[in-house]
Amino acid sequence: MSRTIVLASTQIDMSYLLPTFAKLAPELDIRMHQEAPEHADTVLCWHAPAGLFGALPRLRLVQSIAAGVDHITADPTVPPDVPICRIIDPNMASGMVAYVVWAVTHRHRHFDQYLARQTQGIWQENPIVPTRLHRVGIAGMGVLGLAVASALAMLGYDVAGWSRGPKPDLPAGVMGYHGAGQLGDFLARSDSLVCLLPLTDETQGFLNADLFARLPAGAHLINVGRGGHLVDRDLLAALDRGQLGAATLDAFTEEPLPGDHPFWRDRRIVVTPHIATRTGPTVVVTQLLANLARLDAGTPLVGAIDRQRGY
Amino acid sequence: MSRTIVLASTQIDMSYLLPTFAKLAPELDIRMHQEAPEHADTVLCWHAPAGLFGALPRLRLVQSIAAGVDHITADPTVPPDVPICRIIDPNMASGMVAYVVWAVTHRHRHFDQYLARQTQGIWQENPIVPTRLHRVGIAGMGVLGLAVASALAMLGYDVAGWSRGPKPDLPAGVMGYHGAGQLGDFLARSDSLVCLLPLTDETQGFLNADLFARLPAGAHLINVGRGGHLVDRDLLAALDRGQLGAATLDAFTEEPLPGDHPFWRDRRIVVTPHIATRTGPTVVVTQLLANLARLDAGTPLVGAIDRQRGY
Repeated sequence: MSRTIVLASTQIDMSYLLPTFAKLAPELDIRMHQEAPEHADTVLCWHAPAGLFGALPRLRLVQSIAAGVDHITADPTVPPDVPICRIIDPNMASGMVAYVVWAVTHRHRHFDQYLARQTQGIWQENPIVPTRLHRVGIAGMGVLGLAVASALAMLGYDVAGWSRGPKPDLPAGVMGYHGAGQLGDFLARSDSLVCLLPLTDETQGFLNADLFARLPAGAHLINVGRGGHLVDRDLLAALDRGQLGAATLDAFTEEPLPGDHPFWRDRRIVVTPHIATRTGPTVVVTQLLANLARLDAGTPLVGAIDRQRGY
Repeated sequence: MSRTIVLASTQIDMSYLLPTFAKLAPELDIRMHQEAPEHADTVLCWHAPAGLFGALPRLRLVQSIAAGVDHITADPTVPPDVPICRIIDPNMASGMVAYVVWAVTHRHRHFDQYLARQTQGIWQENPIVPTRLHRVGIAGMGVLGLAVASALAMLGYDVAGWSRGPKPDLPAGVMGYHGAGQLGDFLARSDSLVCLLPLTDETQGFLNADLFARLPAGAHLINVGRGGHLVDRDLLAALDRGQLGAATLDAFTEEPLPGDHPFWRDRRIVVTPHIATRTGPTVVVTQLLANLARLDAGTPLVGAIDRQRGY
């Protein structure tokens, strides 16, 4: 069956995938969204332009290039019977684990201060808080949250995980909390709070003033979820009040983060350009091709989301 | 038996231990080295002043406040029958593990570049080298080396360890090398090289131009051993040639690192003030008191070194 696949993004240049398509599936018709033909049946995307999905009457599959799919579910023009798939990538977890371990240790062990002092030639040590006394809370116990929790527990941190519903099989040494009822207790013991939730209507703005007020004073916020989880002005106010001591942010409402955004020049905030984890082009293209074959065969798709739940 | 304990250091202010002695052993006579009486029988030290040991004819025990004992063995005036002990501290490993994991991820995942770019408001990502393709080599497979190797392997890094003699029980996923004959192969596969050797006559100047030339181009040197392992000028030359890409240093020949030392202002080098791991005063004093009791009872001391071998 002839197929036309549209590569669509308003945020990144999707042409990085073209050499991989040329190698793995040279027979396919691949188009950029600027020249999407009406008969295209597949969209591979990261923040597609508004209105694209509604303009493709033969749409059969929408595939994200990463784990996040909120940029697709937010668009009401995707017909309810069209499957939406995320990438499932085992290497994604190791990338995310390394990022979060860096962020936790960078602040817990005062490397932010040592780097600043080096520029001034100042030899001054901070007392070490033993690893087992530093409490890390991970909001979101999906594949990535579980991998991060497991790694931090193994390094000796005092780790808890919070999820919407109860999780029976937490890694050794990880304390479980769930639901709105246990959120307060979870936050009260999170010296470092890691956001790895999916972005849904329920979790939009999850990282807000009310939540920050329930953390221990001076806590460290690490957002490796989505920009939409964070209320930017509430973060700045919480840092000003000392309610939060620092933040490490890898996801932003608008990406690239605009040049005049106050996060860039705030010494209490580390800004990274959405690099916590990245799936290589081979995995993305291979998984899309597998899903097209499964669609033809009528077998379940890899990474298909529950359209009702939104993730 | 009446005891007089001398606290001795030319590098740090040892009076931080006084409150702990007052609490745990108020009956003991504790003196600073500036006023060491001739009848003192115990020295607790970190780089004691030259000549101190020879001036104490009743000396029965020399205890280091940390794992390093080279600052004691270097002094020929310690009588050969006086035991020299290091601190054995289980928490020391978790502190060291967190430091090395930070250092490896900081460079491997380009956080050095992201922090620099943030100051200029530049949103630019680097490709991610998958964790399993980053090769870490750990020279020194003692308690600390083994703990670091195990943690990095668990995070997914490709880890090897090198030691003087063969080590039968390496952690899962850690490749073993040993002796001078296998040093070259070990170095050739070390994108990040971690030095956790003891400092002895054999390992003095281990990190020199010849060794750097055997590493992959652009390698990252992490010295959490002792300052004496490193030939400072060879490091600067290797960085200039691009043979090394970066260095993270926590130990120096002279500490505090002198204000005019070129390491301070070198953007390719991270300088930290000997903070990779630190044993708290309670553990130091408790272990000294235990060794004094064992000395009286004639039982083996905790952390006693082999005087012949030097560690």
